[in-house]
Amino acid sequence: MITESSSRPPRSASDVVGKSVERQIEEVVAAYVRAADHRDGSAMAALFTEDAVVEIYYTGDGGRTPLGSVRTAAQIGQAVAGMMAPHPPRGWSHHTTFNHIVDVDGDTATIDVQFLVHNVVGRAEPAGGWPPDAVGAQGTITAIESGYNRSTLRRVEGRWLIARHVISHDLPYAFPRG
Amino acid sequence: MITESSSRPPRSASDVVGKSVERQIEEVVAAYVRAADHRDGSAMAALFTEDAVVEIYYTGDGGRTPLGSVRTAAQIGQAVAGMMAPHPPRGWSHHTTFNHIVDVDGDTATIDVQFLVHNVVGRAEPAGGWPPDAVGAQGTITAIESGYNRSTLRRVEGRWLIARHVISHDLPYAFPRG
Amino acid sequence: MITESSSRPPRSASDVVGKSVERQIEEVVAAYVRAADHRDGSAMAALFTEDAVVEIYYTGDGGRTPLGSVRTAAQIGQAVAGMMAPHPPRGWSHHTTFNHIVDVDGDTATIDVQFLVHNVVGRAEPAGGWPPDAVGAQGTITAIESGYNRSTLRRVEGRWLIARHVISHDLPYAFPRG
Repeated sequence: MITESSSRPPRSASDVVGKSVERQIEEVVAAYVRAADHRDGSAMAALFTEDAVVEIYYTGDGGRTPLGSVRTAAQIGQAVAGMMAPHPPRGWSHHTTFNHIVDVDGDTATIDVQFLVHNVVGRAEPAGGWPPDAVGAQGTITAIESGYNRSTLRRVEGRWLIARHVISHDLPYAFPRG
Repeated sequence: MITESSSRPPRSASDVVGKSVERQIEEVVAAYVRAADHRDGSAMAALFTEDAVVEIYYTGDGGRTPLGSVRTAAQIGQAVAGMMAPHPPRGWSHHTTFNHIVDVDGDTATIDVQFLVHNVVGRAEPAGGWPPDAVGAQGTITAIESGYNRSTLRRVEGRWLIARHVISHDLPYAFPRG
Repeated sequence: MITESSSRPPRSASDVVGKSVERQIEEVVAAYVRAADHRDGSAMAALFTEDAVVEIYYTGDGGRTPLGSVRTAAQIGQAVAGMMAPHPPRGWSHHTTFNHIVDVDGDTATIDVQFLVHNVVGRAEPAGGWPPDAVGAQGTITAIESGYNRSTLRRVEGRWLIARHVISHDLPYAFPRG
């Protein structure tokens, strides 16, 4: 039994209508990973404050090497379309996050997550159909990126938006050369 | 500080007893993945409404190819035993879900998740014991399926049950041939 | 619409200040996985009651073979530093948990999770820089352990601490030999 010093009686969670603030913030992250996987720049831009910044680092060697940054919601949306490789045929990705830590202070909040990005490539069905030993899902799923994301959010007219998003990669990153 | 226009004072979350509705629904999914991994048809059937339907699609090519459907809780439970391959010796699976989006409207709700299924196969210990270079967990863990699940739930006598469960696979699927 | 038999009006979740008890407990797990990945014995010890016990089993063959146990928060912290292999250069790990089931009864609680441990090893940048075909994250991410954790927690002076932590591995485990 939970005892309360307050004179107000305990209230059942099922009497509470709507999502907790912490859950609202987790669902911003849920929308973020879906926008990344759909390469949907408009959906991504809508999750950020107009003046937001995304900062990307490599931290896997114990240091903190900057890999790039993007400023303003519009540019962040464009980066999803322009900087992320398009999916190949039968290809997809899953940006996934785990073990969230959410801290809310009025109309600002932070969320700290672990992340893994999985690369998914389906096998093409042979012209003559799947061979007899092919049973179940056909293709490969490979974890290609991991690390931590830390976002700072602001509540703007009742909606939580990301104002600063810091991506810390475990793995070093090579960029295409001109 | 959170300010409130309401005359009711803010209430601390630790005064609230019991699980939020959103959490109750997430724990239906938590029970679903455990029932799948245990190949426990009875536990699975108990999570669905009597007239529930499971629909399975391949969506990884941008289309929506039906792979099958199962109707009624009883048949869904039987499919877990009959359609899913039994685990081999030292074998197991982990159906895992991430980045849930839950929407509740009275006594109905939806939950949208990303999923990954991992295949786990333990190495058999050699007759003479593990070799000297074997240290730590012995075996392989392979991600074999991924995609999105979207469930519609109904609250029936206080319990949330899945009425419709739509599985969208990233990877094409080959079925055993007769 | 949610109807209430109670005379108290429904309360919006956004009027509730602070983390739910269930979320507090999930964030103990979030701190646990970070302490494990940082090999931070002090941070780990601080999550346990003084007289806590960690029990480790192999359950992947349907049995329950004890692999070891550690007693007291101080020893549990030391085990993180002493029993877990240190990260190699450019190496890291991600202990991740999914599909939590949390049950609270006053000042005690349990949380049941699925877990996966990922091993991350970055590729060293060649002396002449990355080759032209190297694009994106450079290295490998491998799932090496999986299973279930079940923790029992106690609320001590307002903080939730782990009193008993049972790790059930899917994969058999080989120990270094003397």
